[in-house]
Amino acid sequence: MPRYKLTIEYDGTDYVGWQRQSNGMSVQEVIETGLKKIDPGPGGLRGAGRTDAGVHASAQVGHVDLVKDWRGDKLREALNAQMRPERVAILQAEPVAEDFDARFSATRRHYLYRIVNRRAPLTYDFGRAWLVKRRLDADAMHDAAQFLVGRHDFSTFRDSDCQAESPVRTLDRLDVSRVGDEIHVYASARAFLHRQVRSMVGSLEHVGSGKWRARDLDAALKSCDRARCGQVAPAAGLYLIGVDY
Amino acid sequence: MPRYKLTIEYDGTDYVGWQRQSNGMSVQEVIETGLKKIDPGPGGLRGAGRTDAGVHASAQVGHVDLVKDWRGDKLREALNAQMRPERVAILQAEPVAEDFDARFSATRRHYLYRIVNRRAPLTYDFGRAWLVKRRLDADAMHDAAQFLVGRHDFSTFRDSDCQAESPVRTLDRLDVSRVGDEIHVYASARAFLHRQVRSMVGSLEHVGSGKWRARDLDAALKSCDRARCGQVAPAAGLYLIGVDY
Repeated sequence: MPRYKLTIEYDGTDYVGWQRQSNGMSVQEVIETGLKKIDPGPGGLRGAGRTDAGVHASAQVGHVDLVKDWRGDKLREALNAQMRPERVAILQAEPVAEDFDARFSATRRHYLYRIVNRRAPLTYDFGRAWLVKRRLDADAMHDAAQFLVGRHDFSTFRDSDCQAESPVRTLDRLDVSRVGDEIHVYASARAFLHRQVRSMVGSLEHVGSGKWRARDLDAALKSCDRARCGQVAPAAGLYLIGVDY
Repeated sequence: MPRYKLTIEYDGTDYVGWQRQSNGMSVQEVIETGLKKIDPGPGGLRGAGRTDAGVHASAQVGHVDLVKDWRGDKLREALNAQMRPERVAILQAEPVAEDFDARFSATRRHYLYRIVNRRAPLTYDFGRAWLVKRRLDADAMHDAAQFLVGRHDFSTFRDSDCQAESPVRTLDRLDVSRVGDEIHVYASARAFLHRQVRSMVGSLEHVGSGKWRARDLDAALKSCDRARCGQVAPAAGLYLIGVDY
């Protein structure tokens, strides 16, 4: 059966997350349900990253084996038509080699975390960013973030239900910058632990607001103690923006 | 009574527009209801632009006379607290001279129209942009748009219910550019006719998709005939982004 790579955008607000769950509709289930209507194949979809409830994606990647010999654009159109009016869209569909695996072939994952840093409540960005009312120093956040770049035991920034065997990961990039009244945090790594990005961003917020100094972030990392994580930033600000292969 | 200038952001999706109406909740009513809870003043709010249902604003401006002597930041905080969980936010509140009029003192209004130009449906941008699936030539749109810049009779691009006495307006700017898979149209003028921006953008889409040439847009303008307007672009893509005084 031919294998297809799907590049997927979604608004995570109304879903229980990427992964199928018994307590509500997941992004994976939305797409698999659409696939069943257009192709008799097994249609089991594997994603590059298991985003949590409320987390968005501008370029999640998944793979699926289908029976029919689809042209990429025809598959994209047929699947998008079946999924309406869900807030899940196939941006691109393309045939790939049968050994392509969206999860295990990925060499790097890229996330963006959006903070809106102002006093006023969110309107059209509600559910799409984290509103932080205290003034944040983006330069201080960026400087402190560099302590986290590299190969470390990230136990401090790992959810207690994380199922990864090892807490060691190599963080390639953690860049913080101010864009008007927004703070953007870009994080890239081959793989992340569960809630690692949100845990790092939550702790960086402490640095930006002056509650922590850079050395407090470094000490939290080195403690390898989940209780030392500053806070976990809300799901709404997180976007999976790309996966490299 | 002291007068205050309010800078206002809103997600227009769930409102009947800026202006109070009997058929649903307006942005104006949301703010006036909030004002009544914090100040005994008349609280009648006048806005710089009467945006339609579904149109958004990142910087609408209004003015209001209140009884209390408010510090700007206190007024902003008190009003935002009263308006929760509406998708309307006061970004700034400041005392102004008693002859300041949000509508009549305005020297220029600025709008942005967002088109997402791709095949896939919208997810987190649903209700916040116009999805156009045909490939658009932004350069052709920009070149054609220059026919509309300047002082003209804009009858072609004016809604039939427009109440302005004259159809003549001076358009200072109509710039079209591509930003990734988005097309951004920036329009600036001292004043616009009802649905002028959406009518111009709808017609520019015809140019971008190749249905019209630049000279067809020019001919439509010169005809001063509403029936020659290409189409009216959806409300969801339009943002009032600034008002100059």
